[in-house]
Amino acid sequence: MSTVRFEITMSLDGFIAGPEQSEENPLGIGGLALHEWVFPLAAWRAQHGLEGGEVNASTPVMAGLMANVGAGVMGRNMFGPIRGPWGDRPWQGWWGEDPPYHHPVFVLTHHAREPLEMKGGTTFVFVTDGIEAALTRAAAAAGEADVLIHGGGSVARQALAAGMIDEMRIHLVPLLLGDGVRLFEDLGDPLPSFEQVASIEAPGVTHLSYRRIR
Amino acid sequence: MSTVRFEITMSLDGFIAGPEQSEENPLGIGGLALHEWVFPLAAWRAQHGLEGGEVNASTPVMAGLMANVGAGVMGRNMFGPIRGPWGDRPWQGWWGEDPPYHHPVFVLTHHAREPLEMKGGTTFVFVTDGIEAALTRAAAAAGEADVLIHGGGSVARQALAAGMIDEMRIHLVPLLLGDGVRLFEDLGDPLPSFEQVASIEAPGVTHLSYRRIR
Repeated sequence: MSTVRFEITMSLDGFIAGPEQSEENPLGIGGLALHEWVFPLAAWRAQHGLEGGEVNASTPVMAGLMANVGAGVMGRNMFGPIRGPWGDRPWQGWWGEDPPYHHPVFVLTHHAREPLEMKGGTTFVFVTDGIEAALTRAAAAAGEADVLIHGGGSVARQALAAGMIDEMRIHLVPLLLGDGVRLFEDLGDPLPSFEQVASIEAPGVTHLSYRRIR
Repeated sequence: MSTVRFEITMSLDGFIAGPEQSEENPLGIGGLALHEWVFPLAAWRAQHGLEGGEVNASTPVMAGLMANVGAGVMGRNMFGPIRGPWGDRPWQGWWGEDPPYHHPVFVLTHHAREPLEMKGGTTFVFVTDGIEAALTRAAAAAGEADVLIHGGGSVARQALAAGMIDEMRIHLVPLLLGDGVRLFEDLGDPLPSFEQVASIEAPGVTHLSYRRIR
């Protein structure tokens, strides 16, 4: 079976986005500061066409994110800013004609749509019957490789509540947001149980890895 | 000036005690599991008159807790289970005639009481005018040494909200409690700002150290 995993950056007080999320401010008030650990990295800069930058203890963690991924799952809000039916000239994603995934990506939506094949091996497949169906289809597509939940936080939380997350990595930053969107909330009963696998100290962040034990 | 610091164990979902705290169950439902990382340690067992146990990466962390402490602060609920006025034969603390502190401990209470001098250098001083007064008096008593907030969580949160915590160490455990008492809540405006100082991986826990930057 595929391993289902996700990674997310969380503030010390438990938020994965600030309050008052909007189309203009998708991370909410103060939420961009969550990701300050990633912007100085050479690996991140190279992804965005920039030279220079740091190599530090976060570098191998970033490299591990996309390793051995056979399929992905994402929420509709991560796929695009549009809401409601897809319309006549539907949104093609944020990423141009060659998205950086290179594997099938299952997009959770309430609105049916034919699969969208892009260049470079990325195909967006639209799933209307919920998180469990999306993860099951992704696992079948991934074969022996992993299923990665690309985001957002709501999808990760739904998968946690469904007991379907095998591994998670929390990038914990020394930030207090005070308000916003929590990752660990409304996780149902019984709660999933995890064991600590590794903790890696890096500049401005601690990378915490956990594995589900039941 | 003294450094004011505290240490506390927190679940991955941000709780320092489970729900429905009571006199019989002071850590709330499921809350004792927060501290599973400490019970196997030889250092903890020795404190409780038990032989054997483990030495691991948590051992020096535990040793650091009580190093260089010149005075302490604790809440009334940590001092004793009694509520209301002290009465004629007042509570002397949980710890017998020689408590393990060996320094002045300022106890926050609504009920005035003369200082209580114990053996071994511990004196309980009762403070009725709030967290800032307690911390100020503790700092004066500590001199060049640190002020340690012994607990509970409510006192730590009040000190955080007052912007008076210089250093904190969170012992983060891979537990989801789902409900209970949060450490980081109602911290006021502006929120305190911290930088990450160190992260130490140990069996079943990650020791995260932070220092206030403004």
